[in-house]
Amino acid sequence: MEKITVTLGKRSYQITIASGLFEDPLSFLPLKAGNTAMLVTNKTLARLYLNKVRHTLERVDIHVDQVILPDGEQYKNLSVLEQIFTALLENSHGRDTTLIALGGGVIGDLTGFAAASYQRGVRFIQLPTTLLAQVDSSVGGKTAVNHQLGKNMIGAFYQPLSVVVDLTCLQTLPIRELSSGLAEVIKYGIILDAEFFVWLETHINELIDINPVAMAYCIRRCCELKAGVVAADETEQGVRSLLNLGHTYGHAIEAEMGYGNWLHGEAIAAGMMMAAHTALRLNQLSKLDVSRIRTLLIRAGLPVTGPKIMTPDSYLPHIMRDKKVLAGELRLVLPTAIGHAEIYTGLTKETIMSAVLDCQD
Amino acid sequence: MEKITVTLGKRSYQITIASGLFEDPLSFLPLKAGNTAMLVTNKTLARLYLNKVRHTLERVDIHVDQVILPDGEQYKNLSVLEQIFTALLENSHGRDTTLIALGGGVIGDLTGFAAASYQRGVRFIQLPTTLLAQVDSSVGGKTAVNHQLGKNMIGAFYQPLSVVVDLTCLQTLPIRELSSGLAEVIKYGIILDAEFFVWLETHINELIDINPVAMAYCIRRCCELKAGVVAADETEQGVRSLLNLGHTYGHAIEAEMGYGNWLHGEAIAAGMMMAAHTALRLNQLSKLDVSRIRTLLIRAGLPVTGPKIMTPDSYLPHIMRDKKVLAGELRLVLPTAIGHAEIYTGLTKETIMSAVLDCQD
Repeated sequence: MEKITVTLGKRSYQITIASGLFEDPLSFLPLKAGNTAMLVTNKTLARLYLNKVRHTLERVDIHVDQVILPDGEQYKNLSVLEQIFTALLENSHGRDTTLIALGGGVIGDLTGFAAASYQRGVRFIQLPTTLLAQVDSSVGGKTAVNHQLGKNMIGAFYQPLSVVVDLTCLQTLPIRELSSGLAEVIKYGIILDAEFFVWLETHINELIDINPVAMAYCIRRCCELKAGVVAADETEQGVRSLLNLGHTYGHAIEAEMGYGNWLHGEAIAAGMMMAAHTALRLNQLSKLDVSRIRTLLIRAGLPVTGPKIMTPDSYLPHIMRDKKVLAGELRLVLPTAIGHAEIYTGLTKETIMSAVLDCQD
Repeated sequence: MEKITVTLGKRSYQITIASGLFEDPLSFLPLKAGNTAMLVTNKTLARLYLNKVRHTLERVDIHVDQVILPDGEQYKNLSVLEQIFTALLENSHGRDTTLIALGGGVIGDLTGFAAASYQRGVRFIQLPTTLLAQVDSSVGGKTAVNHQLGKNMIGAFYQPLSVVVDLTCLQTLPIRELSSGLAEVIKYGIILDAEFFVWLETHINELIDINPVAMAYCIRRCCELKAGVVAADETEQGVRSLLNLGHTYGHAIEAEMGYGNWLHGEAIAAGMMMAAHTALRLNQLSKLDVSRIRTLLIRAGLPVTGPKIMTPDSYLPHIMRDKKVLAGELRLVLPTAIGHAEIYTGLTKETIMSAVLDCQD
């Protein structure tokens, strides 16, 4: 069993990684007999894991209600959020309830924001079931829903009580979802850890095959890297924004294509290539490094170009609405070497758009 | 000019009280030339004050957009909240924007929660225009929207940058709204300050007449009292819950009658009488004090009984859903003397319902 602590003073919490955790009541501490919890999941995961988790909780006399949401990024909105509140109120859940997010990033983001907002804040536990959620969205307390005009525009910084990663979930994960998670894994290597990037170059096939030893190490390393960044900068005033590598372009792809048509990691993979090409154009990144990034993404089963139907122009309105735009100034996280990234400001629209074409070569 | 500081570490802020503040650019510090702000108000207030505030901001080169919402408690919901997000996104407001709430409690609560949630948190300034908002809802960082099944069930603790109370607003306030504000004023006397209660018994007619000297003192004293409580207990783990005197019954009235039909202060006045009668039943409050509370509420133009059409039974489902119910246990704030209140737990449903009838004698 791997354990990582996210250090945030009173709001510190642990991430536990192992196989079979959903069947162990200890995973759900500090919940105890007599407590009430609301399990939030989607239809697909309900079939696979809901009864298992319910049973584990009920064995130790925790009262469990449940709300089952439709499956997909297009449901990460205020009206689906309201369904969670309705379920909580219909079942008379008080301030002492605990929300349990059983699912990927969509369920985690929705449930986390519901926990942050229900009666101005109740406890919540993350049970991330996708690789993407395990290495990224479940760690760090970013919660949000989408708005028609922009992704993750409505949300809160709100930390869970704990994050429980049961590795057996990955066995049922579709291969596209696995690759999508690997995009965020590769991102950590690019921005923070050259050694880990080399490890990934060596072990990428084992990860695709869900080798449990390789996967446990990979998830632990990503969580450690993210936990370090979050501890240093919880509300993204500085270093945390490096984690947005590829996300400015990526969000434009997701918004333009309609949420859910391109998976988050797929959009981020293409976005990281665009950021790499922007850095190349500005002579901040070597051709060799661009090529290593591209090769690793391809080996992970990820796209390295944007959607064919998107012209460079079509990225711009989305980018201008991005949360990283301050006072109208374009800001972008750019890799400057494998294992290192920086925030660049004052970029021209032309540079940003040219990179979209560049990476299609 | 009266100034009170709400002491909350890094999130400390000032409340300023005077006539004419909306015309003084200094009221809007730390906003400065080149900044962007979104004014949120309702149709009624837009006619009265919007241009004045806009002009003050534009004189010092602050870019102002606006969103005008329908007027009324029934619009304090997630779908109206979404209108604020839409306006922010359509006008490309970034993380560096400032939301300005120009209005009463509904506008303040909606705008505050929008500010807490937009891009996971942007700055906001409160310009409370009703007495209720000036003495209560604008101070302390409670923001929320209603759910069909319960009032203020969705929200956040989120502090403003500053609160600017322009006393001239009270001149255009309907008398029912003024009385509604006085309910919260009287509440502070009952729970925290016997001397202030006596002052109110002496000056209630001047407050009804909006005598500026009496009103300025009254608002300052209420803000001081509330600021003290909030500084001691921001997220309502303890003493802050005393401010909920009358609110458990009051929320039941508001929910049952439909939000907006009974004004908040009217419901709270009746609710405080019910709490007083509960305390009387439990021999925790004297008959004389019950009678002084009743007399002052009547002199302030407030109801001292619940709606005739509501049976005692009809309060119960609302009370069971109240945020103050923990693990199904009924809790109620009860006055134990003029100037003192306590939280009582383990009350029976019968006691709670009997008080509804008692206070109709």
